[in-house]
Amino acid sequence: MNTWNIIVEGFNKAEVTKHESIFSLGNGAMGMRANFEEDYTGDTLQGSYIGGVYYPDKTRVGWWKNGYPEYFAKVLNAPSWIGLHIKIDGELLDLNTCLEVKNFRRQLNMKEGWYERRFTATLPNGVEIAVKVVRLLSLRYDEIGALRYEISPLNADTSIEIESYLDSGIKNNDANWDELFWNTLEISSENNCATILAETKKTAFKVQTFMENHLFIEGKELNISEKENRKENYIGLQYEVTVKQNQTFRIEKYGGYTPLTKSKTLSKVRDAQALTFEGLLEMQKEDWAAIWETSDIVIEGDEKAQQGIRFNIFQLNQTYQGKYAHLNIGPKGFTGEKYGGSTYWDTEAYCLPFYMATKGAEVARNLLLYRYKQLPQAIENAQKLGFTGGAALYPMVTMNGEECHNEWEITFEEIHRNGAIAFAIYNYTRYTGDESYLKEYGMEVLIAIARFWAQRVNFSEEKKQYVILGVTGPNEYENNVNNNFYTNYLASWCLSYAATMALKYKSEKQWVTIKELKEWSDIVEHMYLPYSEKYDVYLQQDGFLDKDLKPVSAIPTGERPLNQHWSWDRILRSPYIKQADTLQGFYFFEERFTKEQLQKHYEFYEPFTVHESSLSPCVHSVLASALGKTEEAYALYLRTARLDLDDYNKEVHEGLHITSMAGTWLSIVEGFAGMRVKNGALTFTPRLPKQWKRLSFKVIFRGEVKEVII
Amino acid sequence: MNTWNIIVEGFNKAEVTKHESIFSLGNGAMGMRANFEEDYTGDTLQGSYIGGVYYPDKTRVGWWKNGYPEYFAKVLNAPSWIGLHIKIDGELLDLNTCLEVKNFRRQLNMKEGWYERRFTATLPNGVEIAVKVVRLLSLRYDEIGALRYEISPLNADTSIEIESYLDSGIKNNDANWDELFWNTLEISSENNCATILAETKKTAFKVQTFMENHLFIEGKELNISEKENRKENYIGLQYEVTVKQNQTFRIEKYGGYTPLTKSKTLSKVRDAQALTFEGLLEMQKEDWAAIWETSDIVIEGDEKAQQGIRFNIFQLNQTYQGKYAHLNIGPKGFTGEKYGGSTYWDTEAYCLPFYMATKGAEVARNLLLYRYKQLPQAIENAQKLGFTGGAALYPMVTMNGEECHNEWEITFEEIHRNGAIAFAIYNYTRYTGDESYLKEYGMEVLIAIARFWAQRVNFSEEKKQYVILGVTGPNEYENNVNNNFYTNYLASWCLSYAATMALKYKSEKQWVTIKELKEWSDIVEHMYLPYSEKYDVYLQQDGFLDKDLKPVSAIPTGERPLNQHWSWDRILRSPYIKQADTLQGFYFFEERFTKEQLQKHYEFYEPFTVHESSLSPCVHSVLASALGKTEEAYALYLRTARLDLDDYNKEVHEGLHITSMAGTWLSIVEGFAGMRVKNGALTFTPRLPKQWKRLSFKVIFRGEVKEVII
Repeated sequence: MNTWNIIVEGFNKAEVTKHESIFSLGNGAMGMRANFEEDYTGDTLQGSYIGGVYYPDKTRVGWWKNGYPEYFAKVLNAPSWIGLHIKIDGELLDLNTCLEVKNFRRQLNMKEGWYERRFTATLPNGVEIAVKVVRLLSLRYDEIGALRYEISPLNADTSIEIESYLDSGIKNNDANWDELFWNTLEISSENNCATILAETKKTAFKVQTFMENHLFIEGKELNISEKENRKENYIGLQYEVTVKQNQTFRIEKYGGYTPLTKSKTLSKVRDAQALTFEGLLEMQKEDWAAIWETSDIVIEGDEKAQQGIRFNIFQLNQTYQGKYAHLNIGPKGFTGEKYGGSTYWDTEAYCLPFYMATKGAEVARNLLLYRYKQLPQAIENAQKLGFTGGAALYPMVTMNGEECHNEWEITFEEIHRNGAIAFAIYNYTRYTGDESYLKEYGMEVLIAIARFWAQRVNFSEEKKQYVILGVTGPNEYENNVNNNFYTNYLASWCLSYAATMALKYKSEKQWVTIKELKEWSDIVEHMYLPYSEKYDVYLQQDGFLDKDLKPVSAIPTGERPLNQHWSWDRILRSPYIKQADTLQGFYFFEERFTKEQLQKHYEFYEPFTVHESSLSPCVHSVLASALGKTEEAYALYLRTARLDLDDYNKEVHEGLHITSMAGTWLSIVEGFAGMRVKNGALTFTPRLPKQWKRLSFKVIFRGEVKEVII
Repeated sequence: MNTWNIIVEGFNKAEVTKHESIFSLGNGAMGMRANFEEDYTGDTLQGSYIGGVYYPDKTRVGWWKNGYPEYFAKVLNAPSWIGLHIKIDGELLDLNTCLEVKNFRRQLNMKEGWYERRFTATLPNGVEIAVKVVRLLSLRYDEIGALRYEISPLNADTSIEIESYLDSGIKNNDANWDELFWNTLEISSENNCATILAETKKTAFKVQTFMENHLFIEGKELNISEKENRKENYIGLQYEVTVKQNQTFRIEKYGGYTPLTKSKTLSKVRDAQALTFEGLLEMQKEDWAAIWETSDIVIEGDEKAQQGIRFNIFQLNQTYQGKYAHLNIGPKGFTGEKYGGSTYWDTEAYCLPFYMATKGAEVARNLLLYRYKQLPQAIENAQKLGFTGGAALYPMVTMNGEECHNEWEITFEEIHRNGAIAFAIYNYTRYTGDESYLKEYGMEVLIAIARFWAQRVNFSEEKKQYVILGVTGPNEYENNVNNNFYTNYLASWCLSYAATMALKYKSEKQWVTIKELKEWSDIVEHMYLPYSEKYDVYLQQDGFLDKDLKPVSAIPTGERPLNQHWSWDRILRSPYIKQADTLQGFYFFEERFTKEQLQKHYEFYEPFTVHESSLSPCVHSVLASALGKTEEAYALYLRTARLDLDDYNKEVHEGLHITSMAGTWLSIVEGFAGMRVKNGALTFTPRLPKQWKRLSFKVIFRGEVKEVII
């Protein structure tokens, strides 16, 4: 256990894919799984990703529904630049076939932002070598990565043949039609450098993947020229060296991606190598030190929690740096290709507060602008579903603003996402005090969202109130329900907030007509919220009390998680809640309810909540803290803080749960530290778990860095 | 317009696939679309099908749900035996490339059971020929088909090369993974005969496809020997003849399928040709005359209606003859491959009465036995969804008893199908007076179904009644609703009927424990049925009155059918009903409601019903007749009676709507003639549409043929 490093020792073939996820590197612009540089014939999930480069995979569903998008924008597995084919005395180095692998160790240095792997291996020909590799993706030059691969023969003088390559013949594991997504346009090489220009099909992103190699023996650079091995979608540069026993051979490889011409790309490569590997590593340390300066959380007395939160903060920073307005926070970041799309409501509901408090208003503003820029597509998306007059429905999952999800109960019905996008504008304004975003951009988004809700409700003659029928709430273990409390409440809040802001800023512009405002206020005034007098709680949706209301504790443990054991209909008709739903509303709007109400609702819903979404325990944890249930809050906190490190759900091999990592931060900062914004100021109501001796962190609030020590 | 024939004149390439469906042939054991024998490079959907021969295609869904079946049993496109490659003076006959096609005419003789096609064509080489083809699939020898293909050169003496072939390299259009489903095992030929032994992958159905050719000029058989053209999955027998201008060349080809050895198959072929084409045609006329004897409906004064009902009766007989207990009535019969599976609840709810009344109790009993034999799989299916103790859930779609549908809202939730299977047992017993099926087989099915319902309900502490949550009713424009009236009512009826029968036949066996009976009767007594006091109607499901209750007439016509214009969520939250739902319950259980109740419900639901299922208008038509709304009943009747002939839905090219054809029969017999079974006797309450001068038909009731003349 090391609170600044993730260290795993011992070689276990069954854990290779899992550790490929955990030791992933990213710099906000690109990322890669911790694949081995050398050949590996065992189980592996190869993955390199470039932010914003995607492929619209043609939708493949069993039963088409009108309104489904034709394409699903997928995170694209990119050409790979790290690869080295290595032969030792003619024998291919492949840890899957080695006679023995000893001293295998992976280390992720989160403080400095690099990844190291070491091992000693005995090849089938009996040659024993020691290997040490260090890799990084530069934060400062975010088109550039570098690796230093060292080999020392331990029991003989050896000949080492090494072919350092670029490979653009890359497939996505999850391709719907088993296609290649890239066309290779041009391959070049000169002076230990090579480039491959490849273009994505359909989307026509042109990417130069490049590399440059430097070889050393015992620290002394070799003046050696390469032999080229050029194939379709591939270029390899071959070298052969003789290395004496206990000498160290080293190859330093610079590589990465640019959208530039070949000559500009080559000049980038020269810049990179001029900085040297050591130089890039030094910069990396400096740049990560700057990140940690405002984002570290120090927990004294609980090493596992300390390491867990640092891992989460580290991954959030690897995924998103806030430099580019077209990027967002994919649920798996740069650690896997699952899910596709890059943007879910996770960004607004869970991630925004983290980036806002640790990177400041500009970065948070970029996240908001991302949605602003996609407003035209959100309006078009709503039109496809029958809405008019500028109503917007933001997509459930998107890359470029277009919906790319295709499951009717989610795509068409999980419309509460629209509310989270409006809430984020409110949240940003409340936290930063900056009203300019709202006035310049946010109002347009708010009004388009309000128009959606105004059309999506209908007046029930039976209830004499407005209802919202056929929705899926945050709890995806219910589908197509009527009057989901969270959705109805949020819709009403959106209408009310949009109307209030339209009036507040009416001197700038007439945002909406009086008639429209009246309609909105009529809806707000007469919005139906399902409620039980008996329990004095709002009901998650109509009919909730008709369910067989046994608590989660009554489910035999062998039947958990439910989604792996129960058929879908059984899950749907059960009272079990996948993730905070009614309570998500209490989390967003805590100040609009009394503590007594919060307690009643928490105590009513928590016993039915199975937390089978990684986004669930954090919300319950924050609320449990607010209710003074600190030990319960801590138990909930532990369920996400080390979700990936300890692989609770046995799915880390597919990638990390990036967005839920922001939830862990919320559990600490809003939960245990009890941070709130009240009347333009930060307040704290600390309630530390009893194991924690001290908690300290910094937040950027309205341009100032504040240190919090509890 | 010819009331015994379907005749289409004129060659229109755009209508080829549509007419391939309409002129399909079947004999209950096999069937084929009306594909051309000669080559055709235009748009065509090739299809030959063998009853009961299917392929389990691996499921392909976008988003897997726990409980989905791994395979989807597909109607299998079978090897083809009708094909003839024809060259006239070296030029391939292909209507798509002919310079001119005149006098093109298709005729389906429904009275006698054969299909004829004629045309005059000018080939690109200027040769003009007249062609006439007659084809049949023998009812009496249901492994055998025959065709007679005549060619007369009109403007020159010609050389005709003809290659008569079998082809087992056949694909399904709807293969999920684009695979071939057949392996060809053996190809043989001798003396103008050929066979291909092919085996389906996975299911290992072995099928011999066979042919024998006889050639004639001017009626005189030629003694000519063939040249073999053998390829992978293919065998052709080639002949070359010289035919003088205005002479007629003729090839008679016998072909079909057997599950037998090659020598037994060849002996079948010899039998077939010994009967001669003329002989087979004569038998066909006799056999169809026997069918029409008890199944014809004569409508005087309405030729379109007359032709329509005969087409429907003809197709129902082509699809299912009741000879084999492993066959059933697929929704497209032998006319297309769409949907897959062969058995839906259509069989019990719509088709059983037709076959029972026109073919008698034995055939109806075979339909019931089909489900009895699949009871073990239905129990297993229920187990997969978490049910225990012998509870059965029959599949939504099946071929061999296993579920093969994969859409959670249907597969897991459209559970009312279980009720229709129980109702069919009741209906059979009521109509035939035969209690032996019930005692020997039906009771087991009833009890297993009742056990399903007893577990599927739950007691609502809120309502203090039993509820059924998360279902899809017959109206598939609602998904995952609570307390669908039809489902709840049917479940309660099933429990009550099973309990009553268990007591009635208790001397034979102790079917269930007293404890179980008590549980069932408690559910029956306390079953919740959603009801509106205001309208004094049962509600289709909870919350129905919260909808925006505008009638169908308020929908702009350009937005119909809804499923082609509205997104799925909009359809779901609308009040629009795809097919009779609450009214399906009133149809099944008419005698349990007053006429006033029926009228209220009909008048409440009909204005919201869009009838976008072919199974819908017939039920409304029967009920409208019962209410004396004869003109409305007639308008509804017309919507299905000529659905395929007039291609209302522009989808006939995919195949015919076989099961809804039985609904048309119901509209007449139960609707306009008002036939009911009361106290073991038939009663009639005729209400003829004003255009109809006379209606007459026969029904087989309790072993006797009754003639009805109205």
